[in-house]
Amino acid sequence: MGEFDLIARYFTRPVRRAALGVGDDCALLSVTPGMQLAVSSDMLVEGRHFFADVDPAHLGHKALAVNLSDLAACGARPLAFTLALALPRVDAPWLQAFADGLLRLADAHQCELVGGDTTQGPLNLCVTVFGEVPTGQALLRSGARVGDDIYVSGTPGEARLALDALRGRLALPPAALQQLRPRLEQPTPRVALGLALRGVASSAIDVSDGLLGDLGHILKASGVGACVDATVATNLLAASAQQAVATADFGAQTLMQCALAGGDDYELVFTAPPAQQAAVQAAAQASGTRATRIGRVEPAPGLRVVDGQGQPVAQHFASFDHFA
Amino acid sequence: MGEFDLIARYFTRPVRRAALGVGDDCALLSVTPGMQLAVSSDMLVEGRHFFADVDPAHLGHKALAVNLSDLAACGARPLAFTLALALPRVDAPWLQAFADGLLRLADAHQCELVGGDTTQGPLNLCVTVFGEVPTGQALLRSGARVGDDIYVSGTPGEARLALDALRGRLALPPAALQQLRPRLEQPTPRVALGLALRGVASSAIDVSDGLLGDLGHILKASGVGACVDATVATNLLAASAQQAVATADFGAQTLMQCALAGGDDYELVFTAPPAQQAAVQAAAQASGTRATRIGRVEPAPGLRVVDGQGQPVAQHFASFDHFA
Repeated sequence: MGEFDLIARYFTRPVRRAALGVGDDCALLSVTPGMQLAVSSDMLVEGRHFFADVDPAHLGHKALAVNLSDLAACGARPLAFTLALALPRVDAPWLQAFADGLLRLADAHQCELVGGDTTQGPLNLCVTVFGEVPTGQALLRSGARVGDDIYVSGTPGEARLALDALRGRLALPPAALQQLRPRLEQPTPRVALGLALRGVASSAIDVSDGLLGDLGHILKASGVGACVDATVATNLLAASAQQAVATADFGAQTLMQCALAGGDDYELVFTAPPAQQAAVQAAAQASGTRATRIGRVEPAPGLRVVDGQGQPVAQHFASFDHFA
Repeated sequence: MGEFDLIARYFTRPVRRAALGVGDDCALLSVTPGMQLAVSSDMLVEGRHFFADVDPAHLGHKALAVNLSDLAACGARPLAFTLALALPRVDAPWLQAFADGLLRLADAHQCELVGGDTTQGPLNLCVTVFGEVPTGQALLRSGARVGDDIYVSGTPGEARLALDALRGRLALPPAALQQLRPRLEQPTPRVALGLALRGVASSAIDVSDGLLGDLGHILKASGVGACVDATVATNLLAASAQQAVATADFGAQTLMQCALAGGDDYELVFTAPPAQQAAVQAAAQASGTRATRIGRVEPAPGLRVVDGQGQPVAQHFASFDHFA
């Protein structure tokens, strides 16, 4: 099978929302008047972002999910995406499963594959996603204000528990791993929550490198500091993990590390003024996602991590850096 | 140097045309009312699209040039681009040179770097470029009509001559290689010509895989056939090559292969009705590019290659396919 057959067989579908899709030099998109285009790119590399033996359907899902998560963090509605794919060889069953996983998530978000590139090389996926947001209404990292509450969606740390189990750094019974593994391999981008938070949240980011590290980007961009209660997110994870595995023995330190610095969660961390507390919970409920208050924005620069009694937590939380 | 320092040092510049650039979850672009957004993605892999020892400034240039060429083939004006970069390691002088080559070409086209991704992995570059074109005026592959003239810009085949010389398949004196090598490593995207051809050309494509192969995409998308005089493009290349190397002995077969199936030229192949002949030459002149008529669109499907006397050329022309 050649390059053009491969594109035609697995990645070409009737054009729906785009003016022109796969198969010309460019795709053509019409952006609704009054809307800005939100754009994000993520590259996934074998051995770095996924294991070589990953289920290709899960990989297809994740390649798009991590990009949709960036749209969610801006409060943008998904519109379309491009896929550039380097493949060591043409493996028909692998490609079929990959395309299925990718396009199933795309369909769920009415996000259309409009173009891309295929080439031979070490397995590498690059997705660029496009969304729309009313001009001036995007959720930015720079909007946090002193006194705002800090929230996180879902249960950060589940993805890292699964990763550590797969790497053999943590013992998880097979049934528990089976329950947590989708959080790592098929994360749910919080698109509906991001849309519901427009006009409610003052800033937002998605958790890809770890809750505290990503919150740090908000603080830096907003020129503020924060105090975070480490026990809140840790308790969320403890409750979830214990549902998964009554028999597993998680150290408190491990749980706290996973919850606060685990990464790969694709939950949203966001801030909102205290007056928006009810609106935040309404947005969470409307989008079927939990939002939990974990701290408050403060004037003093830096991030202070405390326990339930307000005492400083000594533990060091390293955020993920691809070149550290 | 960490991931965020790397982005800040080499790839973050003041935002100009975008509403929001590098450093948030998404970039935000405003698309001019009445315009469609043209989008294209290309991935470059070491060993496949460039040699490991390529000058990083040339690589930066080429990564963007091949994408701008897709905008040119649609008649779209460059607006912005994202860059996703997998690097084996952080090599400061390499990154500085790469960013210089990339951003110099970007500045020349007022095309702004608005976002992207960096990660560790085998060297891989993925650029996604955005342009604007008035709604309904994009040059498509599907617009060729029976009776249209077929043109090519510049001198297709020069890039392939340089490639074959670098691979040791062809003997070129060092001075000649030095003259032809920029055509391979720093191709000129025909953006100005693409813009000038709006309303003049009936279809267009850029030559990445080879003149005849890429023309074939136009014919297929337009449901027509064509007759191409092989001697015209071959003579263009012969004249250019002999300027480069009076002493080199190019076989006629080699020149014809390079001109008609060489690939990596990033020239435009386009069609236009005979009534537009003067307008085509005016567009070429206005954009400082040569446009040469090489054939005509015919009703019978398929591509017929003839010599100057109209006799069929027996030679087989294989277009480049990444998985063939």
